[in-house]
Amino acid sequence: MRAVDVVVMAAGKGTRMKSRTPKVLHKLGGRPLIAHVIETAQALHARRTIVITGHGAEGVEAWLRDSAAAAGRGAPDFVRQEPQLGTGHAVQQVVPVLPDDGIALILNGDVPLIRPETLQALVDKCGGERLALLTIEMADPTGYGRIVRSGDSVQAIVEHKDASHAQRAIREVYTGFMAVPSERLKRWLARLTNDNAQGEYYLTDVVRLAVADGCPVVAAQALEPVEVDGVNSPLQLAQLERAFQLRQARALMEQGVRMADPARFDLRGRLECGQDVEIDVNCVFEGHVVLGDDVRIGPNCVIANARIAAGAVLQAYTHIDGEGTGVEVGEGALIGPFARLRPGAKLGPEVHIGNFVEVKNSTLARGAKANHLAYLGDSVVGERVNYGAGSITANYDGANKHRTVIEADVHVGSNCVLVAPVTIAAGGTVGAGSVVNKNTEPGALTVARARQASIANWQRPKKAK
Amino acid sequence: MRAVDVVVMAAGKGTRMKSRTPKVLHKLGGRPLIAHVIETAQALHARRTIVITGHGAEGVEAWLRDSAAAAGRGAPDFVRQEPQLGTGHAVQQVVPVLPDDGIALILNGDVPLIRPETLQALVDKCGGERLALLTIEMADPTGYGRIVRSGDSVQAIVEHKDASHAQRAIREVYTGFMAVPSERLKRWLARLTNDNAQGEYYLTDVVRLAVADGCPVVAAQALEPVEVDGVNSPLQLAQLERAFQLRQARALMEQGVRMADPARFDLRGRLECGQDVEIDVNCVFEGHVVLGDDVRIGPNCVIANARIAAGAVLQAYTHIDGEGTGVEVGEGALIGPFARLRPGAKLGPEVHIGNFVEVKNSTLARGAKANHLAYLGDSVVGERVNYGAGSITANYDGANKHRTVIEADVHVGSNCVLVAPVTIAAGGTVGAGSVVNKNTEPGALTVARARQASIANWQRPKKAK
Amino acid sequence: MRAVDVVVMAAGKGTRMKSRTPKVLHKLGGRPLIAHVIETAQALHARRTIVITGHGAEGVEAWLRDSAAAAGRGAPDFVRQEPQLGTGHAVQQVVPVLPDDGIALILNGDVPLIRPETLQALVDKCGGERLALLTIEMADPTGYGRIVRSGDSVQAIVEHKDASHAQRAIREVYTGFMAVPSERLKRWLARLTNDNAQGEYYLTDVVRLAVADGCPVVAAQALEPVEVDGVNSPLQLAQLERAFQLRQARALMEQGVRMADPARFDLRGRLECGQDVEIDVNCVFEGHVVLGDDVRIGPNCVIANARIAAGAVLQAYTHIDGEGTGVEVGEGALIGPFARLRPGAKLGPEVHIGNFVEVKNSTLARGAKANHLAYLGDSVVGERVNYGAGSITANYDGANKHRTVIEADVHVGSNCVLVAPVTIAAGGTVGAGSVVNKNTEPGALTVARARQASIANWQRPKKAK
Repeated sequence: MRAVDVVVMAAGKGTRMKSRTPKVLHKLGGRPLIAHVIETAQALHARRTIVITGHGAEGVEAWLRDSAAAAGRGAPDFVRQEPQLGTGHAVQQVVPVLPDDGIALILNGDVPLIRPETLQALVDKCGGERLALLTIEMADPTGYGRIVRSGDSVQAIVEHKDASHAQRAIREVYTGFMAVPSERLKRWLARLTNDNAQGEYYLTDVVRLAVADGCPVVAAQALEPVEVDGVNSPLQLAQLERAFQLRQARALMEQGVRMADPARFDLRGRLECGQDVEIDVNCVFEGHVVLGDDVRIGPNCVIANARIAAGAVLQAYTHIDGEGTGVEVGEGALIGPFARLRPGAKLGPEVHIGNFVEVKNSTLARGAKANHLAYLGDSVVGERVNYGAGSITANYDGANKHRTVIEADVHVGSNCVLVAPVTIAAGGTVGAGSVVNKNTEPGALTVARARQASIANWQRPKKAK
Repeated sequence: MRAVDVVVMAAGKGTRMKSRTPKVLHKLGGRPLIAHVIETAQALHARRTIVITGHGAEGVEAWLRDSAAAAGRGAPDFVRQEPQLGTGHAVQQVVPVLPDDGIALILNGDVPLIRPETLQALVDKCGGERLALLTIEMADPTGYGRIVRSGDSVQAIVEHKDASHAQRAIREVYTGFMAVPSERLKRWLARLTNDNAQGEYYLTDVVRLAVADGCPVVAAQALEPVEVDGVNSPLQLAQLERAFQLRQARALMEQGVRMADPARFDLRGRLECGQDVEIDVNCVFEGHVVLGDDVRIGPNCVIANARIAAGAVLQAYTHIDGEGTGVEVGEGALIGPFARLRPGAKLGPEVHIGNFVEVKNSTLARGAKANHLAYLGDSVVGERVNYGAGSITANYDGANKHRTVIEADVHVGSNCVLVAPVTIAAGGTVGAGSVVNKNTEPGALTVARARQASIANWQRPKKAK
Repeated sequence: MRAVDVVVMAAGKGTRMKSRTPKVLHKLGGRPLIAHVIETAQALHARRTIVITGHGAEGVEAWLRDSAAAAGRGAPDFVRQEPQLGTGHAVQQVVPVLPDDGIALILNGDVPLIRPETLQALVDKCGGERLALLTIEMADPTGYGRIVRSGDSVQAIVEHKDASHAQRAIREVYTGFMAVPSERLKRWLARLTNDNAQGEYYLTDVVRLAVADGCPVVAAQALEPVEVDGVNSPLQLAQLERAFQLRQARALMEQGVRMADPARFDLRGRLECGQDVEIDVNCVFEGHVVLGDDVRIGPNCVIANARIAAGAVLQAYTHIDGEGTGVEVGEGALIGPFARLRPGAKLGPEVHIGNFVEVKNSTLARGAKANHLAYLGDSVVGERVNYGAGSITANYDGANKHRTVIEADVHVGSNCVLVAPVTIAAGGTVGAGSVVNKNTEPGALTVARARQASIANWQRPKKAK
């Protein structure tokens, strides 16, 4: 089999997006449209990937270069199409960098949901010898170029406006994808003309040239319409987003994940799940998230870049974002509702983090608890520590961040402030309302508190007139 | 063209709503059904609007009068239909107040999604000379009155139960909307009878009278079924609510707004968006909200009556309600997750409001930050202020609210209370855990804190038996 | 009419669930699949319920036994099918415990949405004399056993693979449910053979035996496909979950409940609603929840095991869980946003609980308010108490929980800690930032606060290099 060289058309402006972002950088499932296309191409083990850029070329090229570098892959090759004189003109730009001996697989940077197996079938149809078109049967083909066949062989693509009455009844249409021997493609590209109303060079004209040359033209069919749907407007982007999310939800359910509502599930990244994972309604996952066996995620959670160990329960409205250093939640931990875990939160087994509690860059050992209205930042918390309601680690002196150490079995009362750097030694107790800025001894009770005093029969302020 | 006088039928009880609220005051997109109808009528520059009330008349009239006053418009005219003896009887009530020289456009107060362009087409069909009926093609017309035509001209409306086999095959049905020369309408109304099983006067009988008088009867067709769907039950209300929300979502997407899921978007009011606005799943907007360029709204936000400047980011679970005095969020501000902004919160550029923070009636200057578990009420906060975790402005002495002033570059430590009225002068620092009720000097460190003391080998309470 | 004895097939493994939980214990609407089936059977006043268990038998039997005990009902009878040699073999196991004189109604433990009225119609068709099959018309019957009829009488069930071309056009298929005179069923079961490719005993073979015996075979039809849909995979479970939730939403709307979006409503338990209740988008209800007249539930609330009295308003993101001791919210109370009520929270009329406030095992009398960032646990709060922002009841000394009493008209300042056991007597005031651990006198002002002191021209820490 000949090598496959992928050509991605990514020069379009996307006027209807009404955006300053180039069309192919708009995001689907959290990644640019073109990233989906390139990832699909990689599944085919393509030899080269050549991206045709135009509108917003610098931005598109920079994004692809950076993301390839971040992934440790080589960047694609880029060719610029400026000005933009049609799809045929676009592909003409790749001639100098496209090897002669391969199969050119032509993709669209704004058609993100094409499947690798569909592209492989298209390449197989080409076989290095034929011009293979990807087609689809449409319920309503109005406006699309019809595939005129004679048996298995394609005779022409006829544009809607040029189609006869009989041709308009054809429901098989061209999708914009093709696989073609590169050497032949180059010869046909050289013969394209722009003698049409728009004055553009059309890639579809190669079909006519192939037929004239006696080169067989064949078709592979896409199975799902969403595979070949392009994004030209925010509405189409939203429609493909939902199709993509449902596709992901189904794949997870096939692995055994139980979802309360697949239509209210969003994954923008990668989600790995153990056995018997349950995900309640309206959750959003971002980045790389790993859920161990029996993890339960309550309704309305937002989870990004985190590893949640087996048996942990995240209650409603848990917000986790471990971007950068990650978040880890230990086995059997109980988090939320209304908890927020930020980068560097590493929670051991059986840790409890309750409502209105924020944890950042802190390590909590087995069984530590912070159940109510609290902040733990830049801290190390020992086993079985009970961190009281309303307590705060004052980790920032206005210039630098410092570390708080709370050793095992410490009991911190309510509304305390631990002013870092400070260590509360093992087994110690901090009385409610204390501000602690000096290290304490093991087992000691530490208080910093004024005496309670009362004024009898106190007159409250009166409502001003 | 003759003037258009709008007649709105709003006397029905809506028994199936099972509610104490009159049917036309039930809300769709946050406004009563009848408000949608009247707003649509206004788009036609109607001369008069006459509302026929009956069940719950006082409530309906009061709402319409108040909302017109609030909008600086004249209230509609009201006529009462009591008792309620049919649709013809309803329209008979308007005879005394309906001018003879106009076109009467008859609308239903419980059919909220009719479009202005559909009504305009209906009025145009009338042309001041013809009886024009609004009709629609239904896939299943069972139960509806069929439109019997002879070419363009309507011969009759035949009720389902009276229809012949051939007539039952007709899929064009009457919708309840008509436009008719008022002078002719009045004459026909005077000739209605109630010699039918229900003993009611039917407005549709005017078709028979028009045909008998040789007045042409014509039809305009509604394009979408939801335009002519009425609300008779909570289920129908919910169905129209979703149709209305999708209509709004599409209109915003056509302007370039990007939505993660148009089926999980609710707007109950007016939303103005700049370029490249992104709205994540499950957000609710109420009142009047303005989003500047590049604003990003995270999942599960509830935003009412607010202006969000360009580049601001509202993270998940941000709750904003500026009812009354409004809320303003400055350029590049970062809000949430779990933040709440209440009326009178005016945040300057680059302000950060973090998790579990509430801001009410307070002005924060550029770059001020309150990132964790805090309350700011009735305060003025200067540039670059850092307001510590757990700190509270005690703005309420139990009788009156007072003002807290925190000048530029102040650093308020954790778990402080600023007892208003009080001013923390520029560049000052307030130590953690301090209660401050006297003004401080610029650049000073202010503390109100007991000494830390420890008791060694303290015996904790034991678990009671 | 003969007595009905229900037989529930619940031995299957559910391999495609990919779960360690037996298939019939997977949850739909918060309850195991089999619980729905048994509850439906109870609506028929069945004499006996016999459950055939197999895979995970201990777990299934234990769950059914425990839930019957919790409900004060007798447990069903259990028979084990081990090994599992087909549906006929399964029902053979019940022969010893099935009385001869009744009607056996055979149900599937993994088909949860069958309606009582459908089963009643099936039993009526049987009439104690006939073999009655539950069938359904399918748009695409491929793969299902076709019902071959001669008029009203069923001649055979023909498996898809054995069906003639003409038989494959039949769209009426067998659903797996039947009602049959038990005495006859037993005779037929004794005559089943396993001479087929799978070597299994098929229950459907009784149709052939009935026809051979001259016993009339008749069919009752299910109306909705979801009634007879089984759960074999997480995807099917999710689909039935949505169907079930929509069914519940419709039933509530028919009672007059207004829902912003029935597709974003989840009820896992029982919800009783008064008149004019409004439920906003994306709410989840669990356990037993009662909502009084005019209650309004904002978006994204999670409410479990609670009684909410008339006129109360729960704002966005209110989280209530009264598991065990329940939660009560009084008339006209205002809760949220971002409030959490835990077991034993009993709020009187007009109580306000605001953002980032947690209430547990506490009674609040009429008009008490805790509006901001606070914790109330194990406390009794009097009328009109104002509980300040950031204040905490320190109810836990590390070993035992104690009670805090805040009498009527007390005003607790911000960031206070009330160290239980302690009583703040009526009309008292607690100054901001105070830690109070001794009882106070009525009307007294109590403070525990250090003096405010300042250090002029304080040099803040510098950013470390």
